[in-house]
Amino acid sequence: MQLSPDTREYPDDPCSGYDYNDKTIVGFSHTHLSGTGCPDLYDFLFMPYGGDIQWQCGSDDGKTKGFRSAFRHETEKAYPGYYSVVLDDYHIKAELTATEHCGMHRYTFANTSPVHLMIDLDHSLVRNSPYRHCKIIEAQARVVDSKTIEGYRIISGWAPLRKVYFRAEFSRPFDSHAFKAGRNIFENIPVANSSNLKLVLNFDKDNSQPLLVKVGLSSVSAEGARENLKAEIKDFNFDGIVEQTNETWNKELSCVDVEGTPKQRRIFYTGLYHLFIQPNNIADVSGDYLATDNTIRHAPDGTHYSTFSLWDTYRAAHPFYTLVQQKRTAAFINSMLRQYETYGYLPIWQLWGQENYCMIGNHAIPVIVDAFFKGIPGVDYQKAYEAVKASSTTSHRNSPFNILDRYGYFPEDLQTQSVSLTLEIAYDDWCVAQMAKKLGHQDDYEFFLNRSNDYKNLFDKSIGFFRAKDSNGNWIEPFNPLKYGGNGGFPFTEGNAWQYLWYVPQDVYSFIDMMGGDKKFVDKLDTFFTLNAKPGDVNGNASGFIGQYAHGNEPSHHIVYLYDFAGEPWKAQFYSAKIQNELYTDQQSGYSGNEDCGQMSAWYLFGSMGFYPVNPANSVFCFGSPQLTKATINLANGKQFTVTTKNAGGKNIYIQSVRLNGRPYTHSYITYQDIISGGQLEFVMGKRPNKEFGTAPKDRPVSVLSY
Amino acid sequence: MQLSPDTREYPDDPCSGYDYNDKTIVGFSHTHLSGTGCPDLYDFLFMPYGGDIQWQCGSDDGKTKGFRSAFRHETEKAYPGYYSVVLDDYHIKAELTATEHCGMHRYTFANTSPVHLMIDLDHSLVRNSPYRHCKIIEAQARVVDSKTIEGYRIISGWAPLRKVYFRAEFSRPFDSHAFKAGRNIFENIPVANSSNLKLVLNFDKDNSQPLLVKVGLSSVSAEGARENLKAEIKDFNFDGIVEQTNETWNKELSCVDVEGTPKQRRIFYTGLYHLFIQPNNIADVSGDYLATDNTIRHAPDGTHYSTFSLWDTYRAAHPFYTLVQQKRTAAFINSMLRQYETYGYLPIWQLWGQENYCMIGNHAIPVIVDAFFKGIPGVDYQKAYEAVKASSTTSHRNSPFNILDRYGYFPEDLQTQSVSLTLEIAYDDWCVAQMAKKLGHQDDYEFFLNRSNDYKNLFDKSIGFFRAKDSNGNWIEPFNPLKYGGNGGFPFTEGNAWQYLWYVPQDVYSFIDMMGGDKKFVDKLDTFFTLNAKPGDVNGNASGFIGQYAHGNEPSHHIVYLYDFAGEPWKAQFYSAKIQNELYTDQQSGYSGNEDCGQMSAWYLFGSMGFYPVNPANSVFCFGSPQLTKATINLANGKQFTVTTKNAGGKNIYIQSVRLNGRPYTHSYITYQDIISGGQLEFVMGKRPNKEFGTAPKDRPVSVLSY
Repeated sequence: MQLSPDTREYPDDPCSGYDYNDKTIVGFSHTHLSGTGCPDLYDFLFMPYGGDIQWQCGSDDGKTKGFRSAFRHETEKAYPGYYSVVLDDYHIKAELTATEHCGMHRYTFANTSPVHLMIDLDHSLVRNSPYRHCKIIEAQARVVDSKTIEGYRIISGWAPLRKVYFRAEFSRPFDSHAFKAGRNIFENIPVANSSNLKLVLNFDKDNSQPLLVKVGLSSVSAEGARENLKAEIKDFNFDGIVEQTNETWNKELSCVDVEGTPKQRRIFYTGLYHLFIQPNNIADVSGDYLATDNTIRHAPDGTHYSTFSLWDTYRAAHPFYTLVQQKRTAAFINSMLRQYETYGYLPIWQLWGQENYCMIGNHAIPVIVDAFFKGIPGVDYQKAYEAVKASSTTSHRNSPFNILDRYGYFPEDLQTQSVSLTLEIAYDDWCVAQMAKKLGHQDDYEFFLNRSNDYKNLFDKSIGFFRAKDSNGNWIEPFNPLKYGGNGGFPFTEGNAWQYLWYVPQDVYSFIDMMGGDKKFVDKLDTFFTLNAKPGDVNGNASGFIGQYAHGNEPSHHIVYLYDFAGEPWKAQFYSAKIQNELYTDQQSGYSGNEDCGQMSAWYLFGSMGFYPVNPANSVFCFGSPQLTKATINLANGKQFTVTTKNAGGKNIYIQSVRLNGRPYTHSYITYQDIISGGQLEFVMGKRPNKEFGTAPKDRPVSVLSY
Repeated sequence: MQLSPDTREYPDDPCSGYDYNDKTIVGFSHTHLSGTGCPDLYDFLFMPYGGDIQWQCGSDDGKTKGFRSAFRHETEKAYPGYYSVVLDDYHIKAELTATEHCGMHRYTFANTSPVHLMIDLDHSLVRNSPYRHCKIIEAQARVVDSKTIEGYRIISGWAPLRKVYFRAEFSRPFDSHAFKAGRNIFENIPVANSSNLKLVLNFDKDNSQPLLVKVGLSSVSAEGARENLKAEIKDFNFDGIVEQTNETWNKELSCVDVEGTPKQRRIFYTGLYHLFIQPNNIADVSGDYLATDNTIRHAPDGTHYSTFSLWDTYRAAHPFYTLVQQKRTAAFINSMLRQYETYGYLPIWQLWGQENYCMIGNHAIPVIVDAFFKGIPGVDYQKAYEAVKASSTTSHRNSPFNILDRYGYFPEDLQTQSVSLTLEIAYDDWCVAQMAKKLGHQDDYEFFLNRSNDYKNLFDKSIGFFRAKDSNGNWIEPFNPLKYGGNGGFPFTEGNAWQYLWYVPQDVYSFIDMMGGDKKFVDKLDTFFTLNAKPGDVNGNASGFIGQYAHGNEPSHHIVYLYDFAGEPWKAQFYSAKIQNELYTDQQSGYSGNEDCGQMSAWYLFGSMGFYPVNPANSVFCFGSPQLTKATINLANGKQFTVTTKNAGGKNIYIQSVRLNGRPYTHSYITYQDIISGGQLEFVMGKRPNKEFGTAPKDRPVSVLSY
């Protein structure tokens, strides 16, 4: 349940449905995404209003006023578990709260004139989007009694097919109602079915008391929605739910206690909130859930997680969960394994239990391999390995392994996004190899380790870039390292050759050698962060620039920390601090790009504590520039790991020295074992680089831990 | 399961997938419709072939050869439960048989060259049809082992959303396989998901033995398909299944024993077969089925019927079932009531458990009311009445009762097909009224009886036609009684004002009065059957003409028997004989229009025995011209009703006299009670009309039996 306001009839961009720049609210819908770039969900828009609005103003075209109302940000209040706003056109104060499967609305009316509530089952992402066709296949609303509505819709959008059921209960009866089914208006009938369905409830009587609505959702059935509501919201105690949900969130967010400036704390905890609002449990309280094969199945642990934006979140969001939310990490993986069972391979991008094939790679693999090496309990790792291997050998439309196995790279004439794909699958293959080795599958180990070197086949040493080849083995001309690709039709995915140059997180030292050694590597990195030339066709996901570095999209996220590997860690410190201080704010536009289901936040969460997982599956965290005075991580195992930063702030962005558990520490990285064992990491900062710290080869980040 | 050959890549018209005029077969798919006019189903096309056909010849455009093969009708053999043909291009003999949920293929090869089997999950009705959008949302095929494939597809077509799962088991292993997923070809991977999915299995070894395939279907899950197959086809005994299914069909078809010419017998039993191949049970053997709200529910009696082409079949097909298949009548009604429970009203046109709103009226009502008055057991008639009433008051897109209640007719400017709709709903309302009265709901009785007279508001006495009014109460000009409508945009549905003039089956005598009495009524009927003028824009459903009478579509079906009501039954006899003898044949093009799920056949079944239900819910059957020498109906209650026709055939089309149970009988009709009690009806025929028989007012058909 993600109950929140929508400012557009048919939201597209922003994908959350709410644009801070908009002046009107069209209603409150119950499901939303956080910074995914692609829009979907927005199920069951509720909008209270006063006076007589004709249905014909229902603004199917998004241009006429319809039921929308002006609002002002001054009247808004929002914190975890609570949102309120005044709908100025109607003098209605709307308040929202939520539990896991249910939402609650409280509408308070300034006067006692007749009021109405519109329920829009047609509200959805923009139709005929350039990227996806949105079609409501069927919707139903049913008047169970004068205080209860049930309904559902079946919709094909970004998720290929979603079924969403709801039950809404009202604190007092409505006197009459009308459906709008397509162009027809039907008054006071008990049920309506239509692919374009709205419903207005008329509350004509005493409006001196607030109207409360509790809403249960289910992806299984109306019965499921009913049971979810019964389990989670028993009566109309709105304030009680707010308090309970706020308490739940406080508990969730207390996994890290941080000290720093008020602004830093706001950014940190907002980020932590963003990190935790997905993946989402789509199972009913009963544990029943909608499987990828469109059957209803049962999750023994009662949870089935979805909203896996893995191309983004495997980088830092999932590693963060392994520190503070290990039970959830196991539940995420078990949910992914359920896709493997019915679908044949692990999620690429899973929404509402459905694969949508957004982005590239098979990055459920690093999530699983990381959890395996960290020994996170609650997962059958034999079965997980089976899934990991199947996901690396079963060709599908995003990963035609048959082509890779034949050519040793993806030829762009046979498979678009070929360079990005070759690089990212090389990383996944390295992960599979490590797990295979540990489990004693020597043949698999050799096969995948060998294939993980395929990226080298696309490195053009003469120019020092990865670039595309065709199926005859020829470099594709012309080559312009500044030129951007989108999501197909070009060798690079949402980026250019400059940004993908750095994508060898599994084998940085070999890569440095390929580049000609530390010096040449660092020179190229320096150029990367300072080359301001921009071609005309920058991709929409490219933003937050520092030279060619684009913090607004994920391919750049690990790059600053590569300086640690080449012996100039102070430059990692410099750019990490710069990004924290310049590209994160506590204002409404707090990020330089899409939030991407927590990844943009996770970057900051790690960065502000001073370390970041360049290779998200090798348990190594590379040092950057800690900006928080203190951070105490309340670890999943009950222990605490405390990071303190002496002289933090201002120009003191450089590490002078480090102590771990009271003893001097010379490495420019720390391991998962160091953290999870509990202890104290103390940074001493200064305004000039300490070029002695972390530069010796023995102090640089290890590439592969000896497991 | 309706396993049969398809002759088009993307079938449209013919809706069965097979056109006798086509020269090639594209494969054998497992689900088909019979004469519905609209196409859908065609799930899982299997096509055996020899040699090396490249995937790129897969003929997505329907123009290139693809896997198709030439065939000749001489090599075809078909009888209930069996079909065979030789695929000339590959020298493969293909044989098919089926059980309720399962199908079996036997492919015999003329030589031992490598052979292949293509399984096409993309095969479906023509895309981008003018009437409906067909989209495969998701499909999967999975290699369970080298002798087993499972898969499913989720498809939106004429039925808004279907899920179909299959399991196929082979008598010997395939050696290798390849998927075509979109444009990608993937060899020997275990599973593929795609909205455009095909699979080729390669049987390279010894092909001297036939290849047998058994296939289970389910609308619930792969597990369901597996269980269905396990329950119905245990081994690869093809001949055993043929024998068993043929036996089942022989038993079904033995409900009537007829004597007549070989041609008459062929037409009769072909018609009986057509009548019984739907409605279809879509529940698994477990009783689980897909409900209208897209949840899986359980049918206690193990059957959930769908494929309800009610605008067609309520006329004669359902009355026929009440004589010989009462258990099925009850099961049909219980299945319809399940739609009421989850959907709010009874089916209009239900396919694969989904409402598609094809055609007009709510003609589940006469089916239920007929069964109620006939006392057919196994239905909760209190609940059925609730459903009938809800279906007559809950406005929906095909039946905006709110408009009818306001205007007393449907104004064409507010609701298209207004005249047909007003007339047909008047009939349904009369049915509701009768049931309400019998159950003691006096208020309902008066309301619906009153509304059943609304049709009179559209009768223009000055010209003697029903015609459209606008919402101001004005006749819509110009009026041309010859002009045809289709399915919207015109006051008449798939017909013209001439054909809909006669649609008052519930109150024929009032209607004769409105028309100015017997003489004027008969004159108009005479004109109807002789007026050959045809406008240019005849609707595609209009065919089988006798004057303006169009036997090819249902609005005409009862009209010949109206002569019985006006005192000139010999004209009913004349035209009934003419239609039987001229518009039904035992050739490949045996009907003058669509079969329409058994209605076109049911007309003949009744007609050839000499009687027909003008009002399908009042238990009265009006006499026409019996053409069979003898027909013995083996009634559902175990009794027999025998119709004998002395002097049948040739020009002896007129009834001279009738005896019922040995006693002279003077009425021009017979009742359900007469038939169901068992007994003997003897017609004596002659070549000149006996104008004394059945003409006295007391002998004419009663309009309402006193229940």
